Formats: sequence, structure tokens, C-alpha cells
Amino acid sequence: MINERLNKLKTAMIKHNIDVYYFNTSDYHMSEYVAPYFRTLEYYSGFSGSLATLLVTLKDAYIFVDGRYHVQAERQCAPHGLKVVKLGTKNAPDPMTFLKRYFTGKTIGLDGRRTNVRFAKELLKNNIRIKNVDIYSVLIEDRIPLPKDPIYELSTRYTGISRKTKLEMVRRVLKGKCHIVNNLESITYILNLRGNDVPYTPVFYSYLVFHGKNVYLFMDGYRIDKHLMERLFDDGVIVRPYDSFYKFLYNISNSKIIIDENKVNYETYVHINRSNNVLYDKRSLIEDMKSIKNETEQKNVRLAHIYDGVAMIRFWMWLENTDKRFITEYDAAQKIDTLRISYKARDLSFASIVAHDENAALMHYFPYKGKAARLKNRGILLFDTGGQYPEGTTDVTRTVALGNVSPEVKKYFTLVLKSMFNLSEVKFLKGLSGNQLDILARKDLWEIGVDYRCGTGHGVGFNLSVHESPPNIRYGHTDNGSELAEIQPGMVFSDEPGVYFEGKFGIRCENLLLCVNDASNEYGQFLRFEHLTMVPFDLDLIDMNYMDERTIEALNRYHQRVYKTLLPYLNDKEAQFLKEKTRLI
Amino acid sequence: MINERLNKLKTAMIKHNIDVYYFNTSDYHMSEYVAPYFRTLEYYSGFSGSLATLLVTLKDAYIFVDGRYHVQAERQCAPHGLKVVKLGTKNAPDPMTFLKRYFTGKTIGLDGRRTNVRFAKELLKNNIRIKNVDIYSVLIEDRIPLPKDPIYELSTRYTGISRKTKLEMVRRVLKGKCHIVNNLESITYILNLRGNDVPYTPVFYSYLVFHGKNVYLFMDGYRIDKHLMERLFDDGVIVRPYDSFYKFLYNISNSKIIIDENKVNYETYVHINRSNNVLYDKRSLIEDMKSIKNETEQKNVRLAHIYDGVAMIRFWMWLENTDKRFITEYDAAQKIDTLRISYKARDLSFASIVAHDENAALMHYFPYKGKAARLKNRGILLFDTGGQYPEGTTDVTRTVALGNVSPEVKKYFTLVLKSMFNLSEVKFLKGLSGNQLDILARKDLWEIGVDYRCGTGHGVGFNLSVHESPPNIRYGHTDNGSELAEIQPGMVFSDEPGVYFEGKFGIRCENLLLCVNDASNEYGQFLRFEHLTMVPFDLDLIDMNYMDERTIEALNRYHQRVYKTLLPYLNDKEAQFLKEKTRLI
Repeated sequence: MINERLNKLKTAMIKHNIDVYYFNTSDYHMSEYVAPYFRTLEYYSGFSGSLATLLVTLKDAYIFVDGRYHVQAERQCAPHGLKVVKLGTKNAPDPMTFLKRYFTGKTIGLDGRRTNVRFAKELLKNNIRIKNVDIYSVLIEDRIPLPKDPIYELSTRYTGISRKTKLEMVRRVLKGKCHIVNNLESITYILNLRGNDVPYTPVFYSYLVFHGKNVYLFMDGYRIDKHLMERLFDDGVIVRPYDSFYKFLYNISNSKIIIDENKVNYETYVHINRSNNVLYDKRSLIEDMKSIKNETEQKNVRLAHIYDGVAMIRFWMWLENTDKRFITEYDAAQKIDTLRISYKARDLSFASIVAHDENAALMHYFPYKGKAARLKNRGILLFDTGGQYPEGTTDVTRTVALGNVSPEVKKYFTLVLKSMFNLSEVKFLKGLSGNQLDILARKDLWEIGVDYRCGTGHGVGFNLSVHESPPNIRYGHTDNGSELAEIQPGMVFSDEPGVYFEGKFGIRCENLLLCVNDASNEYGQFLRFEHLTMVPFDLDLIDMNYMDERTIEALNRYHQRVYKTLLPYLNDKEAQFLKEKTRLI
Repeated sequence: MINERLNKLKTAMIKHNIDVYYFNTSDYHMSEYVAPYFRTLEYYSGFSGSLATLLVTLKDAYIFVDGRYHVQAERQCAPHGLKVVKLGTKNAPDPMTFLKRYFTGKTIGLDGRRTNVRFAKELLKNNIRIKNVDIYSVLIEDRIPLPKDPIYELSTRYTGISRKTKLEMVRRVLKGKCHIVNNLESITYILNLRGNDVPYTPVFYSYLVFHGKNVYLFMDGYRIDKHLMERLFDDGVIVRPYDSFYKFLYNISNSKIIIDENKVNYETYVHINRSNNVLYDKRSLIEDMKSIKNETEQKNVRLAHIYDGVAMIRFWMWLENTDKRFITEYDAAQKIDTLRISYKARDLSFASIVAHDENAALMHYFPYKGKAARLKNRGILLFDTGGQYPEGTTDVTRTVALGNVSPEVKKYFTLVLKSMFNLSEVKFLKGLSGNQLDILARKDLWEIGVDYRCGTGHGVGFNLSVHESPPNIRYGHTDNGSELAEIQPGMVFSDEPGVYFEGKFGIRCENLLLCVNDASNEYGQFLRFEHLTMVPFDLDLIDMNYMDERTIEALNRYHQRVYKTLLPYLNDKEAQFLKEKTRLI
């Protein structure tokens, strides 16, 4: 079937004089999670993972996947004759390197709406001709249409700042410049609106343009009820149909236009008249605004984490009282999800990761029904899960003992826990970035020659995407430089060091932290972090030989706070369970 | 007298239609230490410190100095009617801000040979006209002429790599581009030559240009003996008179020219034909080359630190056996200097800092004859000193007890020592910069709300400048971005956290560290640091309540190494002294 689809595509490629056709897993807005409508890479390759690039040549088809998907791509794509390029292995070229090697001087076909400006410019720079044409859509049968559900408003009780004020703040910074916003999280944030178009992240498909005194929202009007439409109009937001966006761009002239070339698509770029406008490539100021949670958001998100903590306590109790031999990782994930949704969560913030022993060594392992491992009454279980609440977004990882565990597991658990606290307990002078804090979480692991091959932490949205940036806690560098953004009071991010030993086990400890002001003195303003997550760590996994006083003190202080904070929300049995789990060590 | 000199200058300014005249403390090569010939800011202001800016307007004269010189400038300049601008205090503008505020649209006079390109460009960008004219030299009476001493060659026994090979390495990277080198350390390094033109740093005044297949050295030929001249010629170095440099620049055409706008002077810039050449503003590759010490340099520098350790042990013995009431900080500095020079050092690597109790709170305090404080048989003495050896350059700070000290001093000494080891003992993955390591040395001080207002460490040259960069260990950012340069095996830098409590006391612990390879495994190449400095820390200043096991272990390990390494160089009494100072705790 895949083969037949690819053959039809190749016929279309020949008709359009295209040498290679480019697919990725994003939508028109470079989103991480996309509506089913955009699962076209899967349609042509069979690959169901969340991130990949597919390059179809007239002869072959190549799928490029990172480490977490090597096995899955081999299983899903190789049987159809696709060639799997395993990124991160020796000599495996990334898509751009591959294109530069074989297609310089030739023609690449792509959908400009689903390719960011940076990638397209890099192609052109390397003398690869772009044919911006969607040849794949007409060939797709029974495609699930774009979402049409109504969108809704988030009250200032949750957002703290009104839409009108937020828009005014943006306009004040723009000083008359035009700003095109492609990113769905930024649009929902700035308009205090939410939708259900995409799994896990409450966004809706739309574009936003600040132009002169007006703000144009490109989204089909039938999705907005009459009263909301009036309020939007009162706040100076003009609603236009989603598909009239590109035509609108032709009207912009004599303007300075700010776009983020990492987030804005190439179709937008080609529709801007570049001879009578000046373009600035810059991270949107809205991203920086939304990264700093205001007082109301902070108050709310603390509550979201209490709700989340209650659900997690209930899950852990259930797990301890269950004979593990009769459940799988999938069952455990279902249980967590149910406990969250049936309590206070609107949705999950990402697909729950529940992984037993060696499965936990795979950083992004998901338990699929019928394929998930059966648990045992020994070893460990790692669960990395989160919820979407009106009050905020959560993300927490705990690794707990299912029974007896080896001394090696305890040693590494203790080191990972210590590493998490090494970062969370720091006090530092304002002005530092995530790039400079990262080493705190790694140094104890580096000391014994171990590393985790990912960042230490990501920013977390407020009732929005579980991954947002800035901030970004990592020692390496990214395209958008979010790891260099200053860590500021009000920012929320994850602190999640881990160890991953293939074929053996994986351990991760993750809390969300809120940056707050500490003392200010003659040396400047000091900052520190507040733990938002309200879930105990498993004391049975600690080997005191690897603890130090500082960590013991921090852990006890944290556990006492968790106990006091959650107590009013628990019944007697739960309270007793939590008391035992947060006992002083 | 100063007034009379300024009045003559103002007359010249009027004649040249100049509104403000600019002086700094550098020479034609943006050096840190300069020949007496260049002490012209002092001539016109009375200020004898090492760093300042003087702006003379038709009405007034303003001297801009940083924190370490506020008091000194007030004392030396204010009596002559100069206005002292204390940088770092509230509302004090830096020179550029001052110029932008009052001289936009007006004319600044300056000596283009002593102004870097970056500063000049910034002036022009702000619509301040530049009159590049030396109006001050003719007015100076009895000026000490430029140095004319012979220069000498450093054997490959010390440098490890021959001049011919080094030049070839540069040419290979340049690939036909032209490279103008203004920086004296870079020139001496790449040519394996040394001179005595400047205090503390064995450089000589010269310019170097890589152009086509040739290397042009602009330095007066009479300073080079016949045999050395022949060897230079054999290695492809063409020697031209120092003052023919600027005329030579006119000959460069159709070239890509690399200059570092922070290091190259404006006079050079205006002499380059910018219509038929292309300029690239980049840190010189020679700076990066010399920052990585080769095997021979590493072997040598270890020896230099042994020699230095012996001199320091002798000083500390002398100090302990002396009634402190009869000596001053100046006497102690003289003693250190004599012990270094009479043993193996060729020169000091900077003016010795010796400071008692509250004087040590001034980060760059120098004891002047007749003005230095008399010591006491209690409190502490901080000495920050170093030597120039054929085998390398040293820089070490120790703070020792002179008798009884307060518990507060012990507390802070222990925290500073711990902070030093927190950085020196780290093991980390290759790829990090000084900007990312800095927090290790600060975190324990930040935890109690204390900071030191300077970088944690600077690169150190090999038989060259005691301050060189890269590397640069600091959390803030500098113009040349050296703090972002990757820390690589072979780099040498200081690790010198401290505390400075005005009016009370100051403490600093400083070792030089050499970056070396540690294990390499599936996670990558790990790096660590080797202590080069061979001088014990004063155990009598340690309060065990503030120590942790890691630091105790590191200190004991370090002290045992110091003992074993220095033992063969000491007589019995010295060995006994060292044994006591390096006892296990």
C-alpha cells in the first residue's frame, strides 16, 4: 500500500519536474503536536512517530529518524522498501547534508506551508531549486479534515492579564513595526483563547498579524461564538478566514516586518513583498512574554500541581497495592491517565511514558496496547506524565521500586536525585542563562563518567505546550538560542537529569521549578527556584552512601512541604500513605 | 604643572578645531602594560594607575576610572581641578556614553594609533567627527624614548615548535588571506622571539603582516643581531623598520584582510584601502594557537611552577620567623620579589600585590614604599604575585594567618578555598566554555549572598603575558567573547575566587590550572584540570565546620603532591616546614 502511494507520488513528481520531494512531521505552524490532517508523512511511509523527515526520490525513499526511533522506523518502514537513515550513528547524513550531497543544482519539491524559512533559505544557498507545490494532498484518500471545533476563552481569573492589555504591551514594543505570528502557542497566549485542534496542547489553527493599529486573526469565524466575536472586536482583533492569510500578506507594504525564520513558514516568506518591506529575523517577543508567568498564573499553576500531586499519590498507592505480575506498562499508563482526567485535568499534556527496567533506558519509550511489557514484583518503574489543567500545565517523572532492586540501581537513583537537587537548590545572581546552569545538574554524573544525551530541562507553558522556550537548560546550543535567554523570575522549567543504560535500566527524576526572587543586596539581585511539583521521591531507592548533607536536607525540606501542601486534599488512607512516603531520612 | 600642560593642550585643540581630546593608557598595540614612552595620560592628569580614560574639553578635564582607582584618582587628579568620573557608581557615564551625550555632531581629537577600531567606529556611528591627530607629543618635555634594547630568541627547548612550523601553520589556515597582527604577545609567540620593551611581559614593539607568501615584521633591524636576522630571513620573515608599517599598508590590494577590531588600532584601519580589499573582523587565530600549550610548553611550565613554589615556601618561612610589627607590606613584597629573582625567575609577571587585613579588600591594592601598611602579629596577609621564567609564567595568590584571626575570617577563607576546589576538581565533557564553568566557583558564595565582582579566572601566557585570552572564566560577557571559547586540553588559566569586605578584610585563593584529557567513552571526551601551582594553603585558616569531604580529600591530595614535587628542591629546614604545612587534615 505504501509502495503504491509512493509510486503515485513519483508520477506526480515527474510531471512537475521534481527530483526529490520533502516531507516532515510538522503542520503549517511548525508545531510539535499536530492534527491528524497533517499525518501525511505517515501516509507515505508508514512511520507513526512524532518526528521524522522523508525524502522521496524518483528511485528511492529515505526516512531520517533520531535515536529514539531507529528501531521503530526499521520495523514500520523497511518492509516497504524505504531506506532508514539513523541519525546519530556514524556517517549518517542529516537531511540537509544528504540534499547538499546529491541534489545540488537539482529541484526539490516541498509544501512551503510546512517548511520553515531557515530550511528553505539553506536549500537556496546551496543551489538547490525549490518547487513550492503541494502534489501530495490530492493523492491522499479519506483524509481527516482540519479541526472545526469551537474555540473558547480563558478567563483573566486564570490568565491574570486581559487580552486588551497584552495586545497593547506588544504594540508598545513593536513601535509600529509589523509582526507576523505563525506559532500557535503564541497566538493562544496573547489572545487568552484556547482550542482543541491538536492533541495535548490546547491551541487552534490560526495566524496572527500585528499591522499598524490593527491585529488580524486568521481563523474561520464560525468557530467563534457571537459574544466572543464581539469581545474580540472590542479589543481590536479583526477576524478573517484562515485561508485568506497568504493573500492578505500581499497588502503589507512599506513596513518593517518581524518574523522568526525558525517558526514562520516559507509560504509566508514568499508572499511578503520583499522589495518594499524590510524583514527582521527575530524570536517573537510574545514568546518571551509568555515565558514569564505573572502572579495570577503562578498562583494558578501551584494549584494545578497540587491537583496533579493528588492524582500521582493515588496512582502510587494503587501500584503498591497491585500484584505487578498481572499488569503491563500500558495498564499502568491507563490508570495514571484516568486518575488525572477523573480528578481535575482537562487533558494530558503529552502521551504518558511508563517504562519498566530496561524499557526505561529508552528516553522516549511509549507503552502501546498489546506491545507493552508486563511488570514484575521487583525492579523499577519510570513514569513521565503530565496534565493540562485550566490552572496550568504539569510534567513530572518519578522512578519507583516495584520490589527488590539491585544496589547498582540504588546508586544511580541516588546520584540522579542529587543531580536534580544540585540544580533546584542553587541561588544565583540575576543575569545567568540556562546554558550556564546546566553543569550543576550534570557534574556529579560527569564525575563518574556518565552523561544523559539530552538537555537538563525545558520551559513549560501555562495551560499550553509542555515544551516551550525560553528557557532552555542545556550546555549545547540550539538554532534559536533559547538556552542563552536570561533566567528570570516567573519562568517555569523542568529539572530532569537521568541515566540511561541500554538493555539494563533507565532512571529519571523530574520536578518543575518556578524561578523566584531571593534577597537583593550590594552584589545584586539573587534568584532561586521553587519546586512546583508535589510528588514524593521513592526513599526506598536511596543509597545513603551516595547522599550528602546538602541533598538530605533539601530532600527532607521538599518532602515536608509536599506533605503539608497535599494533606488538605487527601482522605485518611492517602494521608497515611503520603506521610510514610515523605518521612524524614 | 598639570594645569599648565592642559592649558597648552587646549590651545592646540583650538588651533585644530577640536572640541574634546581623548587619551587612554594603552600604547599603539592596545597592551595592558606599556613602555614609559606611553605614560602620556599620566603626564596630562597626574594619574599613575594602569587603566583610565582622560577626556579634555576646552573647559574641563574628566578622568574615568574603575572601582579599584576611585580613591587614587581623587587623590592624584582632583587637586589639579580634574573631574573624577567613578565608573560603577550610580549615574556615572562611561566615556562613550559621556561622548554621545555631549559631543554628538562635534569633533573629537585622538591618536589613531592608540585607539582601537571598535571604539573609533562607535564614535563615527554616533555622529562624532574624528580628527586623528597627535597634538600632545610635541608638548611633552623630557619624554622617555621608545625602547631600543636587542630582542632575543626563545629556543625550541622552551617553545616546542619552531618558528618556521608555526608560521606555516598560520599560512595554512589563512589560505592566502592577509592577516595584520598588532598584538605584541601574538607576534612574540609566533616568532619565538622575546624582548624587554614593556614591564613584566617579555614583548617588543612591532607589527606583523602575513601577506601572500611573505611575513613582514616591522621592527627596527638594529635590534636584531646578525645571526638571528639570518635565521629570520631563512624562515621567510622580512624585517622592515617599525615606522614604515603604515605606509606598507597602502600596498595591500585585492585581498581579504583579517583584523581584530578590538586589538588593531584605528590608524591601521584608515591606512587600509577599503575599496579594493575586504576586511574581516575576527579574533586572530594566533591567539587561539598560543592559548593551547604544547607538550614541551606544558613540561616547562610545570618546572616554572616548581621554581616558583620553592621561592614561595622560602617567603612563607621568612614571614613566620619575622616579627611582623617591624615590617610593612612593601617590605614583604620586596622580599618575595628578591626570592623569586635570586632563584630562577627572569622577571616578575606583574607588580606584586601584598595586602594586610582591610587593604586586601581592595582587589588591586599595591603596596607603595612609604605608604604601605605596617603588619601586625595577627590578622591575615594576602599576596598575589608571579614570575616570568624561561620555562613559563606564574601567578599565585595565598592568604595566610599572621597570628590570631577571627572566626569570621576563617569561615570565609574556608568558603573561598572550597570554591577554588569546586572549580579545579570538576570533570566535564569537552565542548564547554569558561562562561559555563564559572558558576562552580561561585555557587557556595552565592548561597550565602556574597559575590566577587570580577571574573573567576584569566588565561595565562607561556613566558608571556600573565593575562591572556582565551580562555576566560566568567559568567558575564566581554567584547571579544573569549569567555565563550571552548576550554581545550593545553589551556592554562587561573582559578581565583575571593571575598572582599570593604574596611574589613579580603581573601583570595589562586592556583593556575592546566586543562588535560580525562577518560573518553561512549558519552564523549571528558576533560579535567591539573594544578600547576605548587604552594600549600594555610591550614591554620580552615574552619572544619565549613569543609566537606570532597574538599578535604582534594586539599589533602593537592598538598601531598606539592610536598612530593618540591621535596627534591628544598634543604632540610625547608622540607620540614613544607611537611608541616602540607600535613593531612
